[in-house]
Amino acid sequence: MKLARCEINERPFWALVDTDTQTVTPIDAPFSEWGPALTRTINEGAAQVSVLPLVDQSLALSEVRLLPPVEPVNRVVVAGANYAKHLADDFGLSAPPQPVAFLKAYGALIGANDDICYPKLTNELDHEVELVVALGLSPVDLANPLHSVLGYTVGNDVSARDLQRSGPKGIGMDLFAAKSQDKTTGVGPWIVTRDEFPTGSPILNLRLSVDGDLRQNGTTADMTWDVGQLITFVEQRSSFCAGDILFTGSPDGVGQGTGKFLNPGELVEASIENIGALANRVAEKNC
Amino acid sequence: MKLARCEINERPFWALVDTDTQTVTPIDAPFSEWGPALTRTINEGAAQVSVLPLVDQSLALSEVRLLPPVEPVNRVVVAGANYAKHLADDFGLSAPPQPVAFLKAYGALIGANDDICYPKLTNELDHEVELVVALGLSPVDLANPLHSVLGYTVGNDVSARDLQRSGPKGIGMDLFAAKSQDKTTGVGPWIVTRDEFPTGSPILNLRLSVDGDLRQNGTTADMTWDVGQLITFVEQRSSFCAGDILFTGSPDGVGQGTGKFLNPGELVEASIENIGALANRVAEKNC
Repeated sequence: MKLARCEINERPFWALVDTDTQTVTPIDAPFSEWGPALTRTINEGAAQVSVLPLVDQSLALSEVRLLPPVEPVNRVVVAGANYAKHLADDFGLSAPPQPVAFLKAYGALIGANDDICYPKLTNELDHEVELVVALGLSPVDLANPLHSVLGYTVGNDVSARDLQRSGPKGIGMDLFAAKSQDKTTGVGPWIVTRDEFPTGSPILNLRLSVDGDLRQNGTTADMTWDVGQLITFVEQRSSFCAGDILFTGSPDGVGQGTGKFLNPGELVEASIENIGALANRVAEKNC
Repeated sequence: MKLARCEINERPFWALVDTDTQTVTPIDAPFSEWGPALTRTINEGAAQVSVLPLVDQSLALSEVRLLPPVEPVNRVVVAGANYAKHLADDFGLSAPPQPVAFLKAYGALIGANDDICYPKLTNELDHEVELVVALGLSPVDLANPLHSVLGYTVGNDVSARDLQRSGPKGIGMDLFAAKSQDKTTGVGPWIVTRDEFPTGSPILNLRLSVDGDLRQNGTTADMTWDVGQLITFVEQRSSFCAGDILFTGSPDGVGQGTGKFLNPGELVEASIENIGALANRVAEKNC
């Protein structure tokens, strides 16, 4: 089952997506009213459409704008430093003993086909394709952290590397300046529910290309900490609410290592197998 | 004018506070409907009560629970490293060339008289009294950043110091684990509107005591960057929305420097002159 947050005439709504017929059927309620119930049906076997308060009229997928699949009242948590080769090749760092978690501003998010804003302060705008977890049930059961997962989506954690390195000595990387810039981080196109993947932390290929040039080509099998471990790590420090999303780190191949940063006009395509793809164009600088 | 976010029977609402009569008058609308209009009246001279959709019945202040004066849809931004003596005495760090900004989880907040949760993972729970800015108007006018300020409130940025130091080498302090723990950060008791302070960044005494023992006694005059500079720093990296709040750093005197950390049962009182006071008791560990 695919669930998207859509917009028509600036009115946001959730919808059930049918990619065969290229239609969306609006869900007439906020996430809090159906997300936990749907996640419970997955824990019992498979996502049950009967828990979704669907409107009885569908729309063409092409008619809607795809929004980030998270409501503004929810948190965007990033758990990084999760691919050893990315750390070693791109930052010259050895794998740390634990992940790094931080919050991303909601205003940093864009939908699957929106433009990436090129922020004023940076000259090193970079990409990071990541598996993103959509939490559907809270509080998290630490004995079964995957039971809190509604499904998975695709993220591109666009980062201003020069600002990331501008953090003061003794305090560390400035992850806020690097990763919360307005309208930079693509998320979507939809959440694919957990029951469509084998049991356990999903093993999936992640790819990112810039104007057709493949820059990242990794697998979530290379994660240092799997999805359950990352959820547990975050939950022990700051509790999840149903509807929150969790970025899980990026494999190697980013501009920080290769020197190939993003430029205005370029098309950035980020995809994860069995989920979907983002296609975001980099806008002019100072957008 | 004092504005509080209150709760009765788990129903949250904003209210105008009268400390002379010890009453609150509910405002029948979300912040987004009156906050910007009220901030504009301050820019024109003084806060005008006429823009507030007040209910025509008041309640005793003692009847309501004071909530953090920010809605869950808004951001909690912390701009730290802003008092040189705190950095030098408490962390052995020299003043950095720029502030440090990061996001705090909404779930970390508690109201003015709520208990402070003592989180499971830490053994070094610490206090930080801070001036907190309530943004009332967005986008911020970078030529006049104080024109975005509705008013000021008090914060106690409770921090788990052992977790703060647990961040990986090369990445830095783990500010998420240290400062986004559930139900730790007191904010309130209300927002005092900007027109009640002299023009410019307010110069105010900040104090924090634990069971009556004065631990922090500083002044916002010692800030390295004033309120306008901090707003500008954050806005250039990630835009504010009306209703967001901004912590502005803490003076010296915290447990990280003195070794006097917080213990279950202790009463932590944080106050700023002409604003008000928080009185939060530390709950049992693993609350």
